[in-house]
Amino acid sequence: MTRFAAPPLAVSLGDPAGIGPEVIAKCWDNRAKFDLPPFVAIGDPRSVARIWDGPLALIDDPQQAEDAFDAGLPLIQLSAADEDVPGHPSMAGAHCSLDSLEIAVGLARSGSAGGVVTGPVSKEQLYAIGFSHPGQTEFVAERCGVSPGNVAMMLAGPTLRTVPVTTHLPLAQVAATLTTALIESRGRSALRGLQRNFGIADPRLAVASFNPHAGEGGTLGREEIDIIEPAIAALATEGWRVSGPHPADTLFHATARAAYDAALCMYHDQALIPLKALHFEEGVNVTLGLPIVRTAPDHGTAFDIAGQDCADPRAMAAAIRLAAECVMYRSLAA
Amino acid sequence: MTRFAAPPLAVSLGDPAGIGPEVIAKCWDNRAKFDLPPFVAIGDPRSVARIWDGPLALIDDPQQAEDAFDAGLPLIQLSAADEDVPGHPSMAGAHCSLDSLEIAVGLARSGSAGGVVTGPVSKEQLYAIGFSHPGQTEFVAERCGVSPGNVAMMLAGPTLRTVPVTTHLPLAQVAATLTTALIESRGRSALRGLQRNFGIADPRLAVASFNPHAGEGGTLGREEIDIIEPAIAALATEGWRVSGPHPADTLFHATARAAYDAALCMYHDQALIPLKALHFEEGVNVTLGLPIVRTAPDHGTAFDIAGQDCADPRAMAAAIRLAAECVMYRSLAA
Repeated sequence: MTRFAAPPLAVSLGDPAGIGPEVIAKCWDNRAKFDLPPFVAIGDPRSVARIWDGPLALIDDPQQAEDAFDAGLPLIQLSAADEDVPGHPSMAGAHCSLDSLEIAVGLARSGSAGGVVTGPVSKEQLYAIGFSHPGQTEFVAERCGVSPGNVAMMLAGPTLRTVPVTTHLPLAQVAATLTTALIESRGRSALRGLQRNFGIADPRLAVASFNPHAGEGGTLGREEIDIIEPAIAALATEGWRVSGPHPADTLFHATARAAYDAALCMYHDQALIPLKALHFEEGVNVTLGLPIVRTAPDHGTAFDIAGQDCADPRAMAAAIRLAAECVMYRSLAA
Repeated sequence: MTRFAAPPLAVSLGDPAGIGPEVIAKCWDNRAKFDLPPFVAIGDPRSVARIWDGPLALIDDPQQAEDAFDAGLPLIQLSAADEDVPGHPSMAGAHCSLDSLEIAVGLARSGSAGGVVTGPVSKEQLYAIGFSHPGQTEFVAERCGVSPGNVAMMLAGPTLRTVPVTTHLPLAQVAATLTTALIESRGRSALRGLQRNFGIADPRLAVASFNPHAGEGGTLGREEIDIIEPAIAALATEGWRVSGPHPADTLFHATARAAYDAALCMYHDQALIPLKALHFEEGVNVTLGLPIVRTAPDHGTAFDIAGQDCADPRAMAAAIRLAAECVMYRSLAA
């Protein structure tokens, strides 16, 4: 990656009992191979030392990360109240993961860090300590003063980007939740996000259908006609390059993917099935609509394999690399 | 492919104005490269001659196909009532496509052909001449004396096989259509089909969830708990190796695919999105539950590109090759 002058990225370790510390340490180990820019980890150094015997470079300020980066994994230290064991999450670990998230976001908000990459947390553990947001994304949005309804999740892999209009809902409730206004809003977030974070001046958005065969003119469902087409028309009127509604099954092969910059999907699995089928090891979650850059690897804490030195760092590496690219594109546009 | 003694496959040309004749002729041209066994096309020779200047070997009986195969594309001749033009379907062409399907199925039923590969037809055109089945699959089932409810569609690619429980329904109606009995029945068809057509003695079936994150214990939908899990339990009680319900988004990457022989999917796009994302050019539709082998390329008539010599024959080649493999496995088991 071409280097340019930007503060280092702040990377929260996530739950200390999950695979976050391991994959972040492995990213530092393989920083040349993965072509990673300088970053600083935020969290409990013990959670790293427990699963990794490489050098830590404890620092106080992200500015020191670049100089320290060759000597060790730069880390801003937080202490958990007790000793966490990989694979065994605790309330203290949940507090630690929340603190590291809060500090990482604060550093990016103040400009000390170029952007935020968030390690995986356990929602169950966070709920147990009183966390009241659905997930990290909504927490970051609130800390940035943005309504959670105005941010959008993008899943990005090397050859595909998808943005789901609806996410964590029973599938049977999706039809009643989809509205033209919602599709329009998410589509606009996707398009602006492509401009701002990916440097695409005139982005192309492909809108997926809800029903099989795009509803076949209404015989297999009317959501395309009643809800999706008006949203596409509205976005097109604003001058955006929007196509669809496309039958979802023929939207994700190589030739189809070459014709758009992101696919707007109607429900969680429509966005996630193709992304993970094609790019399981490198999927990155990008939050669009924030004043700061925020990415995350598209995997969880994986408590079941934590501490076994078998976690795959590629998604975390992709998240760090993509965050740096987004920071670069934003600085070029600024 | 290892050759073994079996009658040649009967390949219906499909709609003479579609790409069926072209891709079948290209399969003969590339029979060595695609490693294809002898087959006989059934249809109007003019529809082939119009888009291809290779040699035809007109024969009366599939038995002659093997000897004729090196000299030309073996073809059992049907006449359409008038001259069809590629890209311009007609009622006469629809009659021709139906006749070729009927004859191909009859040849397989009588044992003269080893199995049937069906070229793409236009449902619209068929409906216009009074065809009353939803598609070719149901027609073939009826001609074989099998209730359409007892056959299942499998989509097969080089590294993935999927079987949808429901197919051409509005997505909002799927939840109300899914029943434990239906999932059980389709699952059993898939498992028996893997044994019979693919030579897998103790097949592994992975059952996909309906809701995101497999419903997260009921908070994101109860279909897993109320409908899918009882079906899995019932199949397991019969001794089948069945797993799930699996979150659908993490079911289709390479490591996940290696752990099962087929994935049972709850709706059309859940089965078709991953199959076409991974294997768009080689997707084959296999009908399970018939007394004969029947495959088809997973594409349509493509009237928009017919006659332009740009149709991709790989899916038709994969359908012919897979039909031959299924015939071989059935003969080994017999």
